[in-house]
Amino acid sequence: MNNKVTIAVDAMGGDGSPKKIIDGIIDHSSKTTNVKYLIFGNKKEIYKLLEKKNNLSFEVFHTENVVEGKDTPLEAAKRGKDTSMWLSIQSVKDKKADIVISAGNTGALLVIAKLNLKMIENIDKPALSAIWPNKKGMSVVLDLGANIECSEKNLIDFAIMGSSLFKSLYPHQVAKVALLNIGSEEIKGKEVIKNTYQKMNQINSKDFEFKGFIEGNNLMNGDVNVIVADGFTGNVALKTAEGTANFITRELKNAMSGNLLGKVSSLINIKNLRKFKERLDPRLYNGAILLGLDSAVIKSHGATDYIGFSNSLTVCEKIIRGQLINKIKKNL
Amino acid sequence: MNNKVTIAVDAMGGDGSPKKIIDGIIDHSSKTTNVKYLIFGNKKEIYKLLEKKNNLSFEVFHTENVVEGKDTPLEAAKRGKDTSMWLSIQSVKDKKADIVISAGNTGALLVIAKLNLKMIENIDKPALSAIWPNKKGMSVVLDLGANIECSEKNLIDFAIMGSSLFKSLYPHQVAKVALLNIGSEEIKGKEVIKNTYQKMNQINSKDFEFKGFIEGNNLMNGDVNVIVADGFTGNVALKTAEGTANFITRELKNAMSGNLLGKVSSLINIKNLRKFKERLDPRLYNGAILLGLDSAVIKSHGATDYIGFSNSLTVCEKIIRGQLINKIKKNL
Repeated sequence: MNNKVTIAVDAMGGDGSPKKIIDGIIDHSSKTTNVKYLIFGNKKEIYKLLEKKNNLSFEVFHTENVVEGKDTPLEAAKRGKDTSMWLSIQSVKDKKADIVISAGNTGALLVIAKLNLKMIENIDKPALSAIWPNKKGMSVVLDLGANIECSEKNLIDFAIMGSSLFKSLYPHQVAKVALLNIGSEEIKGKEVIKNTYQKMNQINSKDFEFKGFIEGNNLMNGDVNVIVADGFTGNVALKTAEGTANFITRELKNAMSGNLLGKVSSLINIKNLRKFKERLDPRLYNGAILLGLDSAVIKSHGATDYIGFSNSLTVCEKIIRGQLINKIKKNL
Repeated sequence: MNNKVTIAVDAMGGDGSPKKIIDGIIDHSSKTTNVKYLIFGNKKEIYKLLEKKNNLSFEVFHTENVVEGKDTPLEAAKRGKDTSMWLSIQSVKDKKADIVISAGNTGALLVIAKLNLKMIENIDKPALSAIWPNKKGMSVVLDLGANIECSEKNLIDFAIMGSSLFKSLYPHQVAKVALLNIGSEEIKGKEVIKNTYQKMNQINSKDFEFKGFIEGNNLMNGDVNVIVADGFTGNVALKTAEGTANFITRELKNAMSGNLLGKVSSLINIKNLRKFKERLDPRLYNGAILLGLDSAVIKSHGATDYIGFSNSLTVCEKIIRGQLINKIKKNL
């Protein structure tokens, strides 16, 4: 189980890099064993941040250039071959690392990953997935925007990739798959979703249970834990959930601190509120996972801090130890 | 301004009817003047509930039959001509009422409304809209599921109908319209949405400002207040927001009452929490509004109580006093 895992890290992407990236690596390494980090970026800055970390297993690969947040994917792909992002992905292609993570430009990452890594045989389109909280634990949701239009085959592939990811992350739980739809007897879903439903019902898999359709209001009740949608719908759902969560916690904060009594009792309540905030801490669900290439590619949120980045490194490690790619190939 | 408004009420639809319907009418009538209610349903039950309400302006129309929650729209349309739902809608067709409201079967209501009422000239498809809270006030969101696939023309019609509804409800505010999309430079939206954007940009309306695209995470920040989507996307967004709100308030409740200290301080905090709950009370945003026919048709949530129903009656009244249908016709 505890074979060495090698993670390629783009140290230059996202806000406050490379500091938060290196701090994230240090944090992650303190919680695990047998992980080696290949760190791509400005050697001088990185070494300064790594001072006195003798027990860390790492190599630094100096890169001069960086993919900027404002670069279009095309620009990044054209002039990006000497960037920390490109070279970290290339190290996976060259089998020097098992998996790659970046907090940089999402579009550039998708395009450079697709240019460098092969698709898994029989998968037509890669999908972006994320991890969401639900009442009973966590869910995997995909696609989140890599594919606006999806065929039945694509959605079935997403179900297989999503349930394989779920099983890699939570090996002791059962993957329960549902298709995101609008559901009531009179307002039926899209043709492609209804047809996918029929086909999914005929798949007899030991690796997941197919639970049919799910509506938006049930996404977080925990009855299913792998939620499949086309990239447009999945993106709208994820971002709406995010926006609603922010709206409600802000309204709550306003209500709690509206007057002196509120302030005092908020102080008393601080421990419970902290528990609440920890449960919903976005750093727990940081980033997205690109599935469908012959290695998963992890996109950390650009704005997260070192704790969020460290959590994403944990996801990298679980994906390799859980043999995600083998699981997907076996399930196809 | 204060001309008589006549509201046709299906008294038999939804859970706990006709009691909650009649209680809602009594509540609404106590807050306004010059409203008359045409009440359709079981005469005996209704009169019993209305006992001693001498200052209420109403007529009761006895109906034997009811559209059931489990009826398909087709069944309801075929055998529904003597139901409280059908006859209340017909009273609008016959110009005996200005507007109609039901808490019954949504699909049946849409179909029976379309069978009885004419489309507004130049509108191709009716749309279901709802009212949502945002940081600064309220938003109108449409379509919520009446139309799965939408053309550019449909979406532009929705923008016009939605902003007219917004101005009827909030006459002193500016309607700010946006198209729901997934927005980042590399993952572009659907063709139909991008084309609608171009066309909307060329419309020079005094009745609304076009604000471009909006992403799910910004739906509730209040920068726009009329949100336009196809019925599939709008339904997923609305229900996801609802599910997320429920999830978070439940998590909060768990956190707050986890231990004795939490319970005690929750008691102290009760006033602030009540403020928070009132702000997010779903009864404030009860129901949906079908737009595009030559009268608006109001669908109250089947599970709401009399306060929610009373709030929907207020929406009915505002729509008539705000001359919604004239506004739509003028803006087309």
